Amino acid sequence: MVRWEPGARERLQRAALDLFASQGFEQTTAQQIAVAAGLTERTFFRHFADKREVLFDGQDQFVTAFLAGLDKVPPGAAPLELVAAALRSAADLFPDERRAYARLRQNVIDQNPALLERERHKLAYVGTAVADALRARGIDDLRAALAAQSGTAVFGIAFALWIRDGENRSLADLTSEVLGELSSLASSR
Amino acid sequence: MVRWEPGARERLQRAALDLFASQGFEQTTAQQIAVAAGLTERTFFRHFADKREVLFDGQDQFVTAFLAGLDKVPPGAAPLELVAAALRSAADLFPDERRAYARLRQNVIDQNPALLERERHKLAYVGTAVADALRARGIDDLRAALAAQSGTAVFGIAFALWIRDGENRSLADLTSEVLGELSSLASSR
Repeated sequence: MVRWEPGARERLQRAALDLFASQGFEQTTAQQIAVAAGLTERTFFRHFADKREVLFDGQDQFVTAFLAGLDKVPPGAAPLELVAAALRSAADLFPDERRAYARLRQNVIDQNPALLERERHKLAYVGTAVADALRARGIDDLRAALAAQSGTAVFGIAFALWIRDGENRSLADLTSEVLGELSSLASSR
Repeated sequence: MVRWEPGARERLQRAALDLFASQGFEQTTAQQIAVAAGLTERTFFRHFADKREVLFDGQDQFVTAFLAGLDKVPPGAAPLELVAAALRSAADLFPDERRAYARLRQNVIDQNPALLERERHKLAYVGTAVADALRARGIDDLRAALAAQSGTAVFGIAFALWIRDGENRSLADLTSEVLGELSSLASSR
């Protein structure tokens, strides 16, 4: 039987981020993370495939949040209405309590090209999933791809604003602001 | 003195693509490419750092084309007008004669996650360069990032349409169509 440590996952994540931030991602081992969290290396590997995955935990939940937002919209809605709903749903995953963690995480990612690539991949993957879901609702290929990719661009930009020093607005508000900016940009041609 | 083979670069590219397509990217070596092009391995490495770079040749030219488009636009233009000019300029790099090559290249890339990642990186890099150039023209951070990222999404989608089987429209026309679609999407909220 697998022994379950209460809160182990969160403790490992917190310890990993502290170590990545203080001594660098490359220099940190899974064993150091486990020790810092007061756990064994075996427990670490019960929760994460490798140290990189600690930073990308919850990707399924992330994608699911976007798609759940789409499900709330009645049929016949415009593609960007759908995208707006997906973004609101995804923004709910990031309450203000997560902002400090998100800032630290981004600092670690920004210093490592492979992690940046992985982060980009994560957003591209969401874009593909959202485009598929829009097509399944009868939106044509071109508009589905365009709405989904613009939507993920909006999310990425809003997220970058959300974790800027001194920023206090919620991710939901920022996402809605950036989406409004997209409408104004696109209609001012 | 380095001996210069006339047309060597193009011959290597052509031979590489044929081999990647027929026997797979992983299975192909720089030496095989050189032999198929009637050249030596040394000549291969005078032109390309590795076999992957054969597929991503001309990245500087690609970025430069986007930026050159921006330079043609008078001051005070709306961000999306600037982006439209950048896209027109980039589309000029891909006349219809390049379509068959682009299709083969995409088939190779689609079969290899690392190459897909590299391709995504290329477009993200263009997005960053265009955003910087928009900021240098006095456009604020948010609008610069949004216009640049929407623009690269438009380019990527138009390019995917351009290389579809049976597609005959030019990349310039498709880019302009997808950009128009973005305006219509964004204004129909």
